[in-house]
Amino acid sequence: VNADQVDVLAFDVFGTSVDWWTGITRRIAEVVPGIDALGTDAAALAGAWRDRYLPSMARVRDRERPWTPLDALHRESLDDLLEVFGLAGRVDERARRELVRGWYRLPAWDDLAGGLERLRGRYVVVALSNGGFALLTHLAKDAGLRFDAILSSELARTYKPDPAVYRTAAGLLGVEPARVLMVACHGWDIAGARAAGLRTAFLERPGEKGPDRPADRAADTPSDLAVRTVDELATALGC
Amino acid sequence: VNADQVDVLAFDVFGTSVDWWTGITRRIAEVVPGIDALGTDAAALAGAWRDRYLPSMARVRDRERPWTPLDALHRESLDDLLEVFGLAGRVDERARRELVRGWYRLPAWDDLAGGLERLRGRYVVVALSNGGFALLTHLAKDAGLRFDAILSSELARTYKPDPAVYRTAAGLLGVEPARVLMVACHGWDIAGARAAGLRTAFLERPGEKGPDRPADRAADTPSDLAVRTVDELATALGC
Repeated sequence: VNADQVDVLAFDVFGTSVDWWTGITRRIAEVVPGIDALGTDAAALAGAWRDRYLPSMARVRDRERPWTPLDALHRESLDDLLEVFGLAGRVDERARRELVRGWYRLPAWDDLAGGLERLRGRYVVVALSNGGFALLTHLAKDAGLRFDAILSSELARTYKPDPAVYRTAAGLLGVEPARVLMVACHGWDIAGARAAGLRTAFLERPGEKGPDRPADRAADTPSDLAVRTVDELATALGC
Repeated sequence: VNADQVDVLAFDVFGTSVDWWTGITRRIAEVVPGIDALGTDAAALAGAWRDRYLPSMARVRDRERPWTPLDALHRESLDDLLEVFGLAGRVDERARRELVRGWYRLPAWDDLAGGLERLRGRYVVVALSNGGFALLTHLAKDAGLRFDAILSSELARTYKPDPAVYRTAAGLLGVEPARVLMVACHGWDIAGARAAGLRTAFLERPGEKGPDRPADRAADTPSDLAVRTVDELATALGC
């Protein structure tokens, strides 16, 4: 991709911009009393929770159920998994709300804040995530990430990789889809952005699913550009 | 209004956050050749253009016409006024586009950037304007205004003071309307926010319509709080 071909960079958030695995694993360990002592493990629950993410959104995307905000999907998955993990009796209503709220506050990868500053000098740089608008607003604020605007799949009332999400974002920013570069660490997101006519940069995040599970790799992901850090992206785009 | 009663501050933009009158008057003088020599005046055209703003949006709000973005309303008003001012033959398509685009780049009032920093330490601080999402994103970026999120009436496909705009904003931010404080310099905006259940702070901007025309005054505007600068607002809210 040529630096002059795009006006907008759209950053995916969970995994691409922030380390959900560390954040959610820590939050579970804080909120669920004695989770390790019970023979299970906070990281396993975090991974299982995240595994419910794509299927839960697919049912909304495929119109099997009406529009449902991500917070509600997170809560349903959590309730179900607490049963599966035999923890239902130990996690009360208040703790469940805190866990769902855990997705509002996650640590940013080290290269993010500085990389965004470089990119913002030349481009309009936005967040474009399946997280809700409120979630993303709080997450970016808390992590000190300076996006020029927050965009959520909520604004299209469906979820990525539905092309409507990517096209709604381009439309709100007043540009053709081809003038938007989607930056993401998941193959399904890159593929969805391409199908909607966006340009794409695959940002490799080897640790995004924790130390024990493989992340998506550039080699398996057709994209216009593949980078390993936001700084590498900024350099590739001449920022 | 008590500082603990609100979570979100929503700033109006044209007039409240930025000096549209100076910005548009200058842009007209740059783009329209010899406008003073023709016996008219850039400031008069800027004022007349802005005077078309509320009536043009009212026709959308009242469902007399379908949803129409502000850029299109600005363009229609401009085309009409160039005829009225006898300038139609001197302003070509390219110049008209530049003039409409002039609303994307306007100077911020001096107290804005610093005041937002103070307020952001305690509150989620957003823009909430009848400007389009793209317009507001560019305007905030260009003026160096750090909002936590950009919200536009475009997201509700109607215009302030339609209560749907204020309520859509609160909904996207995940709070009750009463937890949002609308900060604005226009009586109609404050009244609309109150009618939608928001709390309100009237921010007096005596120069917002230029030196020759009176601006709305706190004395005529029922609101929860009346201030003359963003710093005064920050102090009133304990920031």
